[in-house]
Amino acid sequence: MGKLDDIVSLCKRRGFIYQGSDVYGGMAGTWDFGPLGVKLKKKMMDLWWRFFVEKRDDMYGVDAAIIMNPRTWIASGHTATFADPLVECKECKNRFRADKITDGYGESITTEEFLATHTKCPVCGKENWGPIRKFNMMFQTHVGAVLPEDMTENPELAEKNVAYLRPETAQGIFTNYKNVVDTFYPDIPFGIAQQGKAFRNEISPRDFILRDRECSQMEIEYFVKPDTWEGEFEKLRELQHTFLEGVLGLPAEMIHEEEVPEADRAHYSKRTIDFMYDYPNGREELMGLAYRTDFDLSNIARESGKKMEYRDKNTGEIYTPHVIEPSIGVERLFLAILAAFYAEDNVGESERVVLRLPENLAPYKYCVSPLLKNKPELVAKAKEIYDDLREKYIDVTWDDSGNIGKRYRKQDEIGTCACIVIDFDTLENDTVTVRDRDTAKQERVKIKDL
Amino acid sequence: MGKLDDIVSLCKRRGFIYQGSDVYGGMAGTWDFGPLGVKLKKKMMDLWWRFFVEKRDDMYGVDAAIIMNPRTWIASGHTATFADPLVECKECKNRFRADKITDGYGESITTEEFLATHTKCPVCGKENWGPIRKFNMMFQTHVGAVLPEDMTENPELAEKNVAYLRPETAQGIFTNYKNVVDTFYPDIPFGIAQQGKAFRNEISPRDFILRDRECSQMEIEYFVKPDTWEGEFEKLRELQHTFLEGVLGLPAEMIHEEEVPEADRAHYSKRTIDFMYDYPNGREELMGLAYRTDFDLSNIARESGKKMEYRDKNTGEIYTPHVIEPSIGVERLFLAILAAFYAEDNVGESERVVLRLPENLAPYKYCVSPLLKNKPELVAKAKEIYDDLREKYIDVTWDDSGNIGKRYRKQDEIGTCACIVIDFDTLENDTVTVRDRDTAKQERVKIKDL
Repeated sequence: MGKLDDIVSLCKRRGFIYQGSDVYGGMAGTWDFGPLGVKLKKKMMDLWWRFFVEKRDDMYGVDAAIIMNPRTWIASGHTATFADPLVECKECKNRFRADKITDGYGESITTEEFLATHTKCPVCGKENWGPIRKFNMMFQTHVGAVLPEDMTENPELAEKNVAYLRPETAQGIFTNYKNVVDTFYPDIPFGIAQQGKAFRNEISPRDFILRDRECSQMEIEYFVKPDTWEGEFEKLRELQHTFLEGVLGLPAEMIHEEEVPEADRAHYSKRTIDFMYDYPNGREELMGLAYRTDFDLSNIARESGKKMEYRDKNTGEIYTPHVIEPSIGVERLFLAILAAFYAEDNVGESERVVLRLPENLAPYKYCVSPLLKNKPELVAKAKEIYDDLREKYIDVTWDDSGNIGKRYRKQDEIGTCACIVIDFDTLENDTVTVRDRDTAKQERVKIKDL
Repeated sequence: MGKLDDIVSLCKRRGFIYQGSDVYGGMAGTWDFGPLGVKLKKKMMDLWWRFFVEKRDDMYGVDAAIIMNPRTWIASGHTATFADPLVECKECKNRFRADKITDGYGESITTEEFLATHTKCPVCGKENWGPIRKFNMMFQTHVGAVLPEDMTENPELAEKNVAYLRPETAQGIFTNYKNVVDTFYPDIPFGIAQQGKAFRNEISPRDFILRDRECSQMEIEYFVKPDTWEGEFEKLRELQHTFLEGVLGLPAEMIHEEEVPEADRAHYSKRTIDFMYDYPNGREELMGLAYRTDFDLSNIARESGKKMEYRDKNTGEIYTPHVIEPSIGVERLFLAILAAFYAEDNVGESERVVLRLPENLAPYKYCVSPLLKNKPELVAKAKEIYDDLREKYIDVTWDDSGNIGKRYRKQDEIGTCACIVIDFDTLENDTVTVRDRDTAKQERVKIKDL
């Protein structure tokens, strides 16, 4: 496993992830996926979609808008409670999360508790604080014909048109529950899945892509008959391991289930498991599995005035389904993959960085190279082999830069499974050198056996 | 081709597209893709990505953040000019786009010109107008610790932290030009491609998904040596037709190239072609192909103070590349596909709606059905065939609802290529009925020949 700095450096050096708005000095809490990052991310998201949605008969995909009717967030509780405690230093005007600059307090810290800690301002060192105010982490915007000057001159109009960027994809699923039920009449249990962006206005984004302001989520809301939730919860729990370890190849020993104790669970949840992961900077949440009861559907029913009931086709029973939610962040999973497969080792005399990605995640299966760039007969033969393999596998890259050692080092760093080198023997006997990424061993292979 | 109302109705009825935030009465200008819409959209986007990016050696993908450093929009000109003329009726306080409630005026209509038209308010009928103000269509938000009360009490702080949702994906490409060049040293010409969301605060969203507030774009910025632009433009122009007609199967006669005359082109563009499409409500833009010179890279160089030059590895020449941009909206393409393949015809005695989607776009290749639902031996045999086909093709659906006629009608509407029915003969001689969607013809086929 690599250190975080090494992984960040590799990401930038090789075009996996760049700082967002890099050219303008960045935009805190945002990250741009580069050409190789896009490839890895797309493979990872497609594997998830195939495993949890396409291969199953009980799953329905949706892709909801990011800007939702604001009543969504009243019903879900985000308007009232999706907030951090913000405190301002009256001297230097800097603002901080009160729970982060004190020890042992949670997000419900009060002004009195905070003042009693006699915390000094981390910037100016003084102790002159304003009251704690609730800072809602939803990004706010205005929809429709609202001008910037309306914020001050016409606040009522502005207020009426407030909307938010969704802080989670889950509510885009719940608000489509009724659509899916009315269109597809699914047998229960069934799930609705979504992949998409979510936004959280973190006061202090940090830890590379772990705590960013803009992320992608992959969420499933799985609707079950209330008295069956425990068995379904177990099945979904096992499925997560099958995906993480079986499909993606993450090492089981880096994944740790933590039962969230009642006191720390959302009040409506009767069971939550955090899947923790050994990230380079310590153990952090990779994903969550939560039993949410009928909390969300009942809130939507109340706020919308519409029934969220399900009628069992076989028994005729009518009830509001309960929900189990597996929820994973794309960036968290991306970093988990890099952390798991990043390695530094020695090949002969020289050190190297190698990304031991499994074949279904590696950006390239093969790299094809002519041994020498200035020998047209080698280049022509190599191109021919490249074109053939590219037709067959698509994820094949070409590299004729630098010397062969440099090419290997570069392909190791981006996780290319094997390098194929065309040399003078190739022209004689139709064999090529195939170098394996993980072992660095080279083998002569007949072209037709590739 | 269908009428727009019929297509909207089909989309809702069959789970392609629902109104955004439907359960709360909607959110104007937003749409949610349902289970079948997600399938079709994903296939379409994946075909684009494969054709324009994965299959080519000169293309690099990126996936940039939606919230970008605001200097992006100063450089691109969006802060100053991405605006509609807004006018307010002083009587009823309703607001309108001045160019839309008058005839023959463009977006540059002045207050004087507007007042001279003696337009009456479309809502209250009076003629008492305020001045025309520029309404910027970028959604504005605030990043970091800015509280709602800061808008009025601390406007400087609020102003300092303003950010926008990107109104186009293009700038997420341009801002990564230098990253891609510095990481991958591409030979020129090369392209950078992106698929992702873009947001436009339309004052009056309308025409279903054609003019929505939140859309997805697929854009390429293709960087060329300045004196080669004409040839590259032609190649890209032909490629668009190959994709639209060859890959997606859109009828060539519904696509019309329109050379945008100099007066209507952006001032920096020396050539723009709008690809117009015969939508149900008339001819509208499907995509654009624009020669943007070095406008964007030069703006970024000026705003960022960084060089955007390219050094030719072969000749040593140093210059700022020029850019050709093919840009297509996902929703526009989605509707173009529905419009092209939606049909109403007669099968025997009865009318039907049929979506004649090509095989690479159809949500399902096969639907498998037992003739009768209450015959366990038919159901078991059908399940067996279903499982086999699902293993092989994944896009296979099961339908045992209603009678066989209803199932055909439903599968026709969602574009399933063929229906396979298992009946008593199947149990005798291992043949099934295969019914073709387009011809409605039925054939007996041996199971092993499926």
